[in-house]
Amino acid sequence: MESLYVIKIGGNIIDDEKKLASFLKEFASVKSNKILVHGGGKLATKLADTLGIKQELIDGRRITDAETLKIVTMVYAGYINKNIVAQLQSHGCNAIGLSGADAKIIIAHKRVHPTIDYGFVGDVDSLNAERFTQFIDAGLTPIIAPITSDENGQLLNTNADTIAQEAAKAMSKIYDVQLIYSFEKSGVLLDANDDTTVISSIDKTYYATLKEEKKIFAGMIPKIDNAFAALNSGVKKVIIGKAEELKYLIENKSGTAIVN
Amino acid sequence: MESLYVIKIGGNIIDDEKKLASFLKEFASVKSNKILVHGGGKLATKLADTLGIKQELIDGRRITDAETLKIVTMVYAGYINKNIVAQLQSHGCNAIGLSGADAKIIIAHKRVHPTIDYGFVGDVDSLNAERFTQFIDAGLTPIIAPITSDENGQLLNTNADTIAQEAAKAMSKIYDVQLIYSFEKSGVLLDANDDTTVISSIDKTYYATLKEEKKIFAGMIPKIDNAFAALNSGVKKVIIGKAEELKYLIENKSGTAIVN
Repeated sequence: MESLYVIKIGGNIIDDEKKLASFLKEFASVKSNKILVHGGGKLATKLADTLGIKQELIDGRRITDAETLKIVTMVYAGYINKNIVAQLQSHGCNAIGLSGADAKIIIAHKRVHPTIDYGFVGDVDSLNAERFTQFIDAGLTPIIAPITSDENGQLLNTNADTIAQEAAKAMSKIYDVQLIYSFEKSGVLLDANDDTTVISSIDKTYYATLKEEKKIFAGMIPKIDNAFAALNSGVKKVIIGKAEELKYLIENKSGTAIVN
Repeated sequence: MESLYVIKIGGNIIDDEKKLASFLKEFASVKSNKILVHGGGKLATKLADTLGIKQELIDGRRITDAETLKIVTMVYAGYINKNIVAQLQSHGCNAIGLSGADAKIIIAHKRVHPTIDYGFVGDVDSLNAERFTQFIDAGLTPIIAPITSDENGQLLNTNADTIAQEAAKAMSKIYDVQLIYSFEKSGVLLDANDDTTVISSIDKTYYATLKEEKKIFAGMIPKIDNAFAALNSGVKKVIIGKAEELKYLIENKSGTAIVN
């Protein structure tokens, strides 16, 4: 099997023009097949604030009413996605920006929850690995915005970490997939405030211990849970680390490897 | 050669949820190969107003400063494009939304003008007909937003009529192309206020007469000029007419045909 990197870029890198530019330059230079999934950053929240649209978060998930959906669609699938694509093109990477609705690459449904109405938030049902492969074979690099749609044409705000995980899982049928979660921290840290305390490798036993001792930063738990789920579904390797060190993450010289 | 329709949807249809939905349903049912190019509507201007960003127009062209570029990228390539794509998907049309930067389908440059600085406005250099054909052969229907980029990764606000014309011209190498400009009016009218005065056919001689007699509505002139330019570059037919009558435009039962 050929190798493929599914790379998630998130956190405040998206909001930092310089760091994003430097990441994209490195991303463009990655020789292997690759897919980029980007998060939203704080621009959508800022725009909502300016427009006087009140934002509500539950468990780190934005409650997406109709007005908020409009904003995240504009910001994620429009502004951020097209800026990333245009920058990658200038570095010789033939990027193609996609939401889940485009070419029906992702089918999602509106989240059903017993007590919370998340609004227009989508959970992923399936991802069309054959279509992605077709794009990759045609020399294109898919850049996915965290906006999907359901079968009725309803756009849905969707967690980028989950899309990256689902993409990695689906593509594992066709490629040897490595999933990289890149963000502003150097990896999973023993001390959230000390970037030198990166844990180089976490397996399930160690993860249980870390959680028991409450040494894992709460925001990291869904990422690591996703990572183990991905490994259980055929993904070869999951790495969590600093966006600006993408080259070293790929070379296994930086970040935290999540292993089975 | 196979036939291909390049269809431009613009004017206030974009701003009218019901009319747009009805157009998209008809568009989805067009059996031939097809490409949709959409304009921006008034949402970008409204958003700019709300955000207190002053808009300036010269000859119907928006002067695009950095803040306005951000807005049109969000609205055109994000909100409008993805809503169109998701709706088409719900009608069984496998749409793929693209800006000019995506898959490098359009190369543009920042407009150079001796006296006016249009800001981040793009003029089209070339369009990748082979890439469009690849998408069409893969069962996809390209939906193009009027945002392009230059070789340096700079996004540019670009006239949708021009993109439609350039697309029709470029695709004429590979397909028998019919170019349809669809909007809120029934075609080219002798009396701008009377929808029953549609001119069914205009050739160059008649066009010269109409212009001389000032019977052509000023906003229509660039459209008709574009139409003749397209015919001179291999496009088989250009039709101007009402978006809601797309089926009849295609069947030659409605609208204005521009002929050489």
